Amino acid sequence: MDSLSAQPAGADRLIDPQRLWSTIMEIARIGAIPGGGSCRLSLSDEDRQARDLFASWCLEAGCDVRVDPYGNMFAVRAGKGAGQPSILIGSHLDTQPHGGRFDGVLGVLAGLEIVRTLNDRGIVTERPVVVVNWTNEEGVRFKPGLTGSAGFAGYLDPAAVTGSDGEDFFAELRRTGYAGTAREGFDVLAYYELHIEQGPVLERADAAVGVVEGIQGVRWYKVSLAGRDAHAGTTPMDSRKDSFMAAAAIAFDLRATALKHDPDLRFTVGKVTVEPNSVNTVPGHAELLIDLRHRDDCVLDRFEDIIAAAVKRGAAQEGVDCAFTRTMTVPPVTFDPAMQERLVEAALQVGVVPERLPSGAMHDASNMARIAPTAMVFVQSRDGISHNPAEWSSPAHVATACEVLARAVLSHACES
Amino acid sequence: MDSLSAQPAGADRLIDPQRLWSTIMEIARIGAIPGGGSCRLSLSDEDRQARDLFASWCLEAGCDVRVDPYGNMFAVRAGKGAGQPSILIGSHLDTQPHGGRFDGVLGVLAGLEIVRTLNDRGIVTERPVVVVNWTNEEGVRFKPGLTGSAGFAGYLDPAAVTGSDGEDFFAELRRTGYAGTAREGFDVLAYYELHIEQGPVLERADAAVGVVEGIQGVRWYKVSLAGRDAHAGTTPMDSRKDSFMAAAAIAFDLRATALKHDPDLRFTVGKVTVEPNSVNTVPGHAELLIDLRHRDDCVLDRFEDIIAAAVKRGAAQEGVDCAFTRTMTVPPVTFDPAMQERLVEAALQVGVVPERLPSGAMHDASNMARIAPTAMVFVQSRDGISHNPAEWSSPAHVATACEVLARAVLSHACES
Repeated sequence: MDSLSAQPAGADRLIDPQRLWSTIMEIARIGAIPGGGSCRLSLSDEDRQARDLFASWCLEAGCDVRVDPYGNMFAVRAGKGAGQPSILIGSHLDTQPHGGRFDGVLGVLAGLEIVRTLNDRGIVTERPVVVVNWTNEEGVRFKPGLTGSAGFAGYLDPAAVTGSDGEDFFAELRRTGYAGTAREGFDVLAYYELHIEQGPVLERADAAVGVVEGIQGVRWYKVSLAGRDAHAGTTPMDSRKDSFMAAAAIAFDLRATALKHDPDLRFTVGKVTVEPNSVNTVPGHAELLIDLRHRDDCVLDRFEDIIAAAVKRGAAQEGVDCAFTRTMTVPPVTFDPAMQERLVEAALQVGVVPERLPSGAMHDASNMARIAPTAMVFVQSRDGISHNPAEWSSPAHVATACEVLARAVLSHACES
Repeated sequence: MDSLSAQPAGADRLIDPQRLWSTIMEIARIGAIPGGGSCRLSLSDEDRQARDLFASWCLEAGCDVRVDPYGNMFAVRAGKGAGQPSILIGSHLDTQPHGGRFDGVLGVLAGLEIVRTLNDRGIVTERPVVVVNWTNEEGVRFKPGLTGSAGFAGYLDPAAVTGSDGEDFFAELRRTGYAGTAREGFDVLAYYELHIEQGPVLERADAAVGVVEGIQGVRWYKVSLAGRDAHAGTTPMDSRKDSFMAAAAIAFDLRATALKHDPDLRFTVGKVTVEPNSVNTVPGHAELLIDLRHRDDCVLDRFEDIIAAAVKRGAAQEGVDCAFTRTMTVPPVTFDPAMQERLVEAALQVGVVPERLPSGAMHDASNMARIAPTAMVFVQSRDGISHNPAEWSSPAHVATACEVLARAVLSHACES
């Protein structure tokens, strides 16, 4: 373990790194799994325990704890005057089935650490500071994910929330005691989220923290290829309609193009289905699911055309039929430039030069950016690993990231 | 339907095409399925009905019907003298779950038609003529397939026969009344098998029948590729270890090489497994199952080296680990040249020029070739389709093929 004293010199530290770290480790014991991870699926008994513990800490810190109809928890530390818009800091306490200790949790508990810090120093901010735990960010037990923040932002169709095993989202809210009755009508001045990077960029740049410029737009595509099932032994090579060979050519061709097209483009063939998928049958059907991401919609539009052309070309070369459809669209998000600058300044105060990078993953901040100025801080992830018990961010990096966020929030909350 | 009178002119036809066709169609009613096919899994009630019907026809034709411990049925039409070696004609009555009317059935019933023809003409052959129905050729209900012929040839390990749903092969033999007690000790002079081609070669050559030169050797390979699961959004393209991209490159590369290598080589990637197979995860694991066939073991050896090198190269390019193993080997079979010539002569007598071709599929003849001179006749398959209710060989082609076989068998059985 890195030393907690590894924080850059020259900073008059506001937060208490040891307290933050032990708070993270204490909550990680709820639903602990082998390898150092946690399993707290949304609205499970483990999630309830974590929520209860978080609520008790917030109450101890003097906050007013409220719950809205989506189970989102808001720990409100009042500001000086009435009717001031609030600064929200949040993320999520739920985890993946084989989750780590940091994904989501860090952002919520960093908010709590900032409240505790303000208390320690007797600071009364102009604006209320609200720490948020959003419900079902991970989307494992209930689809779609980012449920709570979508509900808060007013973009959720409650009827569309389905349980992966048939559970009812709202019944589970009631069962766990987290079904609030009234929507919280915060006037949100700003939303900040601290999260692990879940990628290798900060580690490669040797940067403890990153200021996130926005969230990549995501498009999913389905490529269906229909050739003809044929006997591997009796069918000469030149009289086949091999759907997998078309799929392989299309995938490899597009990946090569993607590498040259734009360094920030992310092109993934994540799911491959071959039928009948029998060793001695030339596959008559193949399907590829493609994930395409970039922060610029124009780049996505252009590469979508490239995919469509490559699919047609690859299918024609093998004599198979093809269909190409976009199945999901998430537009790119650009974070508030002034809040990004505030985070950069805070980092420089702390003595670190932050990396600027887009987020490749979705976050609750995606929903919040639709209704309020929003920004994110990333902390370095070891080997870019997440959704895995091996997920790790060093105590020094965690402390630095929380310190950066604390300074930004403090300056923002104290402006009159 | 083609006309039954379409048989080439100039032949004094021995067999009765109408009788053969209606016999095939009568047995097809047992286990009939939509689309004109049949489902008679080995040792099912439907298979038993087909066996019973076949046995009754053989008894009517004056044959002695025997069953061996593998359920193989032998309908023996005695020859002139005692102690003469026998000429066997056979194939199988069991089908695939969505089988056609011809695969296997044609070869058994052509044997019966030849016996009936000999009876009609009062011909007493020098050698016994034996019509055989081999058990579980298809290998659907019990693995491995070609069970009965392997048992007869002495190459079956009875303990290795397993039921796909846990059924016991030998218990099912007893249940259906087809568990013979004594091995049949035929001295086999020759084994002939008539079968549908199950491929497009005869149709493309506009040939009604083919004389089969042998059966391609088959090798199965497993290629395992181990990279690293990674988030499709957070992981830059240049820091991935994408196992599917390695798999796609290897497959496409090898197919291109196979096309140039030897026109008779058959290279198929039939089964593809990708893990975790989630649209937004770079796949950490991929597996390809390859089916490779050629009639010449040297060609197979050489291409195996090419595969091994391509796997290493493709894996290295993506930075993934690889393993390459051969999982099955079936050596090539060469059929008896004199029997092939006898079939060619018979075809020319009938007025057709037979195509010469290897068999891409396995047949009971593969096992018989290990213990006796063996040959096969193929009849044209429409569109090369088999294992499908749409399987079709025209009445005229069926009649021609059976006539060719009848003439070859007659000349062979009458030699003193």
